[in-house]
Amino acid sequence: MSAQKAYEELIKRAREVSLLVSCEEVLGWDERTYMPRGGAAHRADQLGLLSGLAHEKFVDPRVGELLGKLEQSDLVKDAESAEAVNVREIRYQYNKRTKLPKELVEEITRVTTLAQGEWVVARKNSDFKHFLPWLEKVMALQKDKADAYGYEGEPYNALLDDYEPGATVDEIAEVFTNLRKELVVLLGKIKDAPKKPDASIVTRDYGVDLQRIFGESVAASFGYSFTDGRLDITTHPFCIGIGPGDTRITTRYNPKRINDALFGTMHEAGHGLYEMGINKKEHFGTPMGASVSLGIHESQSRMWENQVGRSRAFWVYFLPQAQRIFKESLSDVKLDDFYGAINDVKPSHIRVEADEATYNLHILLRFELERPLLTGDLKPADVPGEWNSRFKNYFGIDVDKDANGCLQDVHWSAGYVGYFPTYTLGNLYAAQFFAKAQKDLPDMTAQFEGGQFAGLRNWLLENIHQHGQRYRANKLVERVTGKPLSYKPLIDYMTAKFGEIYGF
Amino acid sequence: MSAQKAYEELIKRAREVSLLVSCEEVLGWDERTYMPRGGAAHRADQLGLLSGLAHEKFVDPRVGELLGKLEQSDLVKDAESAEAVNVREIRYQYNKRTKLPKELVEEITRVTTLAQGEWVVARKNSDFKHFLPWLEKVMALQKDKADAYGYEGEPYNALLDDYEPGATVDEIAEVFTNLRKELVVLLGKIKDAPKKPDASIVTRDYGVDLQRIFGESVAASFGYSFTDGRLDITTHPFCIGIGPGDTRITTRYNPKRINDALFGTMHEAGHGLYEMGINKKEHFGTPMGASVSLGIHESQSRMWENQVGRSRAFWVYFLPQAQRIFKESLSDVKLDDFYGAINDVKPSHIRVEADEATYNLHILLRFELERPLLTGDLKPADVPGEWNSRFKNYFGIDVDKDANGCLQDVHWSAGYVGYFPTYTLGNLYAAQFFAKAQKDLPDMTAQFEGGQFAGLRNWLLENIHQHGQRYRANKLVERVTGKPLSYKPLIDYMTAKFGEIYGF
Repeated sequence: MSAQKAYEELIKRAREVSLLVSCEEVLGWDERTYMPRGGAAHRADQLGLLSGLAHEKFVDPRVGELLGKLEQSDLVKDAESAEAVNVREIRYQYNKRTKLPKELVEEITRVTTLAQGEWVVARKNSDFKHFLPWLEKVMALQKDKADAYGYEGEPYNALLDDYEPGATVDEIAEVFTNLRKELVVLLGKIKDAPKKPDASIVTRDYGVDLQRIFGESVAASFGYSFTDGRLDITTHPFCIGIGPGDTRITTRYNPKRINDALFGTMHEAGHGLYEMGINKKEHFGTPMGASVSLGIHESQSRMWENQVGRSRAFWVYFLPQAQRIFKESLSDVKLDDFYGAINDVKPSHIRVEADEATYNLHILLRFELERPLLTGDLKPADVPGEWNSRFKNYFGIDVDKDANGCLQDVHWSAGYVGYFPTYTLGNLYAAQFFAKAQKDLPDMTAQFEGGQFAGLRNWLLENIHQHGQRYRANKLVERVTGKPLSYKPLIDYMTAKFGEIYGF
Repeated sequence: MSAQKAYEELIKRAREVSLLVSCEEVLGWDERTYMPRGGAAHRADQLGLLSGLAHEKFVDPRVGELLGKLEQSDLVKDAESAEAVNVREIRYQYNKRTKLPKELVEEITRVTTLAQGEWVVARKNSDFKHFLPWLEKVMALQKDKADAYGYEGEPYNALLDDYEPGATVDEIAEVFTNLRKELVVLLGKIKDAPKKPDASIVTRDYGVDLQRIFGESVAASFGYSFTDGRLDITTHPFCIGIGPGDTRITTRYNPKRINDALFGTMHEAGHGLYEMGINKKEHFGTPMGASVSLGIHESQSRMWENQVGRSRAFWVYFLPQAQRIFKESLSDVKLDDFYGAINDVKPSHIRVEADEATYNLHILLRFELERPLLTGDLKPADVPGEWNSRFKNYFGIDVDKDANGCLQDVHWSAGYVGYFPTYTLGNLYAAQFFAKAQKDLPDMTAQFEGGQFAGLRNWLLENIHQHGQRYRANKLVERVTGKPLSYKPLIDYMTAKFGEIYGF
């Protein structure tokens, strides 16, 4: 068998697995949008079968044979060729997935399904003791998972890798620590600032139908295609790239607050633009036709949400449009007041409601607890105490109850340990990419003021989207920006922005 | 291996196949409702993979082995037990599917995909010559398919069996011929009748939102569950039973005509009630958890649409409700005028627009052409002539162009030969079942007048739905009504109804 034939067979197999996964995605989308409530149990059966079939096909020893043959061939000589990238990343996933014993995967599924139910109860009653035995079980299983994968350094590396392939704690911890210090300084400045925006503007009446119209028009102006995509309503907004020509985003509307759906839609549209920008026509089903990592994905959503959607330049163009649509609530509003209102900073307990400036502190705190939880240096029983003292330290406010503290997020109960850092990585990447885009496109701000976003979109396409998984995240950042990951672009961006708004 | 173990393995395999098919159903529903247009090619890839996997699993020789073992065991001694029914019907499907050579299936798929495209062009231009070579190819392949299945009597039996398992031309042809003769007589009486309803009532303004509200309330009153089901909009309405707790129907709205969505929704809700009534909690994925045939399915939809929804008793209760909802268009309308308007009979060219009295003539005509097309006694080139002369004969009007004649339906281009008769079988079954239900429930008319439909629904559940495929269609009819299939109940029902409306 020639290397070319082996490669074709490998790709055919990879595509079949991806096609099955993309069927799961349609079913998952349906489950969260339109499925009748009565269909829940049957849907679980359907998804269980599909994911089992996809897994079976992916870990087939034949895949290992083909990889072995290809890795010795000339086909992968050029490390940046599609062939080399696909072989490299399929190998990477193959090794990981074949390392996890079936029993461990099943036990994790079983325990996290129960733990999520118990977490709901514990959060509702703000009763950490109720959740403690489950947190202990989950963390023990996550440690087993890390052991099964194997790791250098600390076990956290193995888990982080599931979400941010190739990233290591050593690489990111220093950046995160510096970021945290700078953020605490920034928040101090904001707290003591002479100017304060009037945030009440965003909590007026914003009719849901009007929000939908405005949100869709903004997403379309970013380049989100409604021929190749949709926008629907869900409780927990998400984006899903099902395949070539089919990307879907969702949002939720609050008729008394414009922020949720507006910035939520921009955020998901950012994810959607990434999915639409990947060359799936050619590469669907292979690493070259897939996104790099959760962190890079998040960089796209956060950039469109924050660097674009929360910029003054964006609202130069879009505030008049918003005023035409939300006549009664916005006609008296001045640009700078609106710009201030949507950028109001206020330390608060709940991560998902946090503003741009405090958001990363929520993440860093969780990251700082997850690491010692895995090594055993922090006991699950000590999480609330550790959480609350760090929270007071970073945010300057007390945690009134665990429901507003360590019980607020679903991730741990679901077994997503190592996931949180990707949120902050996304913000860091976004700022670093955006700073470079501004250099490359000197009139980008003027373009935004004219409602033109194709410049930025094409820059992202060319520098990031079209490459699929050709470069791992850290390499991509260096290649695009010329520098390794740093906390500085994010801090510089925030300092300039909040300095202008708060007058320091 | 014990028979019990063999049975469990067989059922496990059958359920997996059905689960895969039900995933296809979700993807198919999505394709026709919400899928972005750009996703069409990818959707075809997804569906191709799933149906290939399902087929592969179903024709696995291991299924044949298990069936062979079970057929010799005591487990199937009681022919009406779930075990015996499941073994019998899985064997039936297994034999059929393993008889079709893969190349023939692929060639049929290839040719019908092209033929459907050419049919669209031919119908648009009313150009039969354009479609003729494709009709010849399709019919030749259908003959090959019949040969591959094998058959007694004429080849049509083999094709009909795909849609109405166990039915034969001999059984139905005589009933159909008698029905046709009686229908022509009935139409003559209607034509010469002294009274004529004013059908213009149905073509007033009926706001789409109001139609949706009214249609959903009618479906719910029939017993269609909106916890276990949905109603959406599509170009070509359909019903799909995805699995336990998940049945979906669709309709389309015409703001200038109340009939389309109203009776369409009742029709699909009738299909939906059947799917919801089957005991899928226990039997999903096996023949005991599936519908009997297309004809029996159609009997359920037509009964709720016609015997219930087009009855005077139904409108005694629902006209006042409709008048509250469609205030401007219906407030001046009297019950008998509305009842007449929705039952207006008028021979017309297009099957899908036909009224209750002429509808079956459209079907019978097609059936009378399909049979000789397969034996070769009718050449495809002679279809228009044969169609038009029969049409004139049965309907009393000329066919002005082939687009309004033999080119109107998609079925032949799609390779659905043997499908049409199930429409008329459905109407015959519906009338025969309904006549028996009226005997069993003497106050059913009074119940309808009070907006109560649970009596009929429970009768259908008990006599038909709960049995899944326990009885083949002809046996079910005999068992439920005490008589073999007959054209009389349908003619009696229509004669009484149209006699009242038209005064003959």
